[in-house]
Amino acid sequence: MARPEPWRLEAKSYPASTVIPTRFQDLDSLGHINNVAMAAIFETARVHFHKDLGYSPFQSGGRWLVASVMLNYIAETHFPEPVTVHQATGSVGNTSWTLFQAAFQGGTCVATCDTVIVMQGPEGNRPIGDELRAAMERQVPRIG
Amino acid sequence: MARPEPWRLEAKSYPASTVIPTRFQDLDSLGHINNVAMAAIFETARVHFHKDLGYSPFQSGGRWLVASVMLNYIAETHFPEPVTVHQATGSVGNTSWTLFQAAFQGGTCVATCDTVIVMQGPEGNRPIGDELRAAMERQVPRIG
Amino acid sequence: MARPEPWRLEAKSYPASTVIPTRFQDLDSLGHINNVAMAAIFETARVHFHKDLGYSPFQSGGRWLVASVMLNYIAETHFPEPVTVHQATGSVGNTSWTLFQAAFQGGTCVATCDTVIVMQGPEGNRPIGDELRAAMERQVPRIG
Amino acid sequence: MARPEPWRLEAKSYPASTVIPTRFQDLDSLGHINNVAMAAIFETARVHFHKDLGYSPFQSGGRWLVASVMLNYIAETHFPEPVTVHQATGSVGNTSWTLFQAAFQGGTCVATCDTVIVMQGPEGNRPIGDELRAAMERQVPRIG
Repeated sequence: MARPEPWRLEAKSYPASTVIPTRFQDLDSLGHINNVAMAAIFETARVHFHKDLGYSPFQSGGRWLVASVMLNYIAETHFPEPVTVHQATGSVGNTSWTLFQAAFQGGTCVATCDTVIVMQGPEGNRPIGDELRAAMERQVPRIG
Repeated sequence: MARPEPWRLEAKSYPASTVIPTRFQDLDSLGHINNVAMAAIFETARVHFHKDLGYSPFQSGGRWLVASVMLNYIAETHFPEPVTVHQATGSVGNTSWTLFQAAFQGGTCVATCDTVIVMQGPEGNRPIGDELRAAMERQVPRIG
Repeated sequence: MARPEPWRLEAKSYPASTVIPTRFQDLDSLGHINNVAMAAIFETARVHFHKDLGYSPFQSGGRWLVASVMLNYIAETHFPEPVTVHQATGSVGNTSWTLFQAAFQGGTCVATCDTVIVMQGPEGNRPIGDELRAAMERQVPRIG
Repeated sequence: MARPEPWRLEAKSYPASTVIPTRFQDLDSLGHINNVAMAAIFETARVHFHKDLGYSPFQSGGRWLVASVMLNYIAETHFPEPVTVHQATGSVGNTSWTLFQAAFQGGTCVATCDTVIVMQGPEGNRPIGDELRAAMERQVPRIG
């Protein structure tokens, strides 16, 4: 598993962001935010990303399924400070797309997440509509 | 993110396994086991893998930190049927190692997980001891 | 909040039981099973209780809503040992009923839970059917 | 289990409050915030209540254990809208105290929670210090 590229660790690379407060439930027996809890934080941030674009799995008449998730943990994360998740669209295919996320706490990147999402209808995988595609393509990373 | 290789989807590739019952809490609003809940199932299976080897993060005097997790979701998973997690050691480095996991339900592979774990002591990353290394190297995948 | 009566802490008071393995996610920063995690363990045990009776919220065409939950924590609970949840029906009303539960670990009662569940259909609260009522009334506590 | 008294459902009864955003993980297969997830929301609100008073289980040199939790669910709660938890101190005993909480969403009380917390040191239950007692007694409910 490759470590994230340097641009992934910089907040300015991402056009969107959302603040996710941490919870006591996120702590594990090591006293820090658990790695699975961080996956749940990224999940909620993804819903806000799409909601801010005006699109939601709940409103599309189809289902958005997570096909894969790649998480890299960079630094320990703490409670009760909030986490800011910076977000960008990666590649947008015919029926699936990738989201790039980076979580920050106290100005430091603590974790990154790449998620592949597939859109499905009762008929099987469903092509992404032109409007959603255009909205996502306006949220590509700002690199270099 | 590459899709898992064919051997990753076969139970016979893995020398170890553990049964993890699902919980109502694992369900999300789509009515299936949520992708983050599956990450929690893999996490508990990892603890059992090491406990069955006779080693535990709780007993080592150090900390075992998760450095990265790569999850692929193959099929929908349901409650209340249990999940069987098949497990093998991947590469074992100086201070870190990889675990390969595959979750099955009803005889079908529903998800795979690759986890990189780093061992730390107060002094920083800590070399893996000879005994733990030997125990893990006896649990490599059975391919071909 | 009244402490549980003595019969609530004895396994033999309950006609039904189910084993719920603990998870690493159940631990909190104190290193024991978190009180909210115990509520999730009781929740999954409730689903098994009704499934074992042949009834499930998923099959009833209605919804079973939790109206109240009263939890008493008696002793610390640990991972990775499983928890055994002993269960009985309390009072069965017209549209709602109470479940009595007690969680044991290593032969000791670690927590009790009283849950009031309400049955609803699109029309509002729905009377409990005769068959489900009879099945539940066969699961009353064995006291004295 | 008694239903909450009318003053418990009014935000103005409580001297303190904190906003807890909901998470996708809080949803269950009924598409609403799960009752156990609401218990986790109340838990995080309790930590903020004590932190805002200047006291924390993490800083006291002892442990704060939850002895009992009584939850009443009044109305369905939704994602992604946040929940506001209004809070007050109930009775303060020698080694334990009660917190009264009420969760609101969209101006409606959706759930109440009464929690008994016990303070422990290595020596067993530990008397509440005068300063913490005084701080808590300034946060009693505003009734009538």
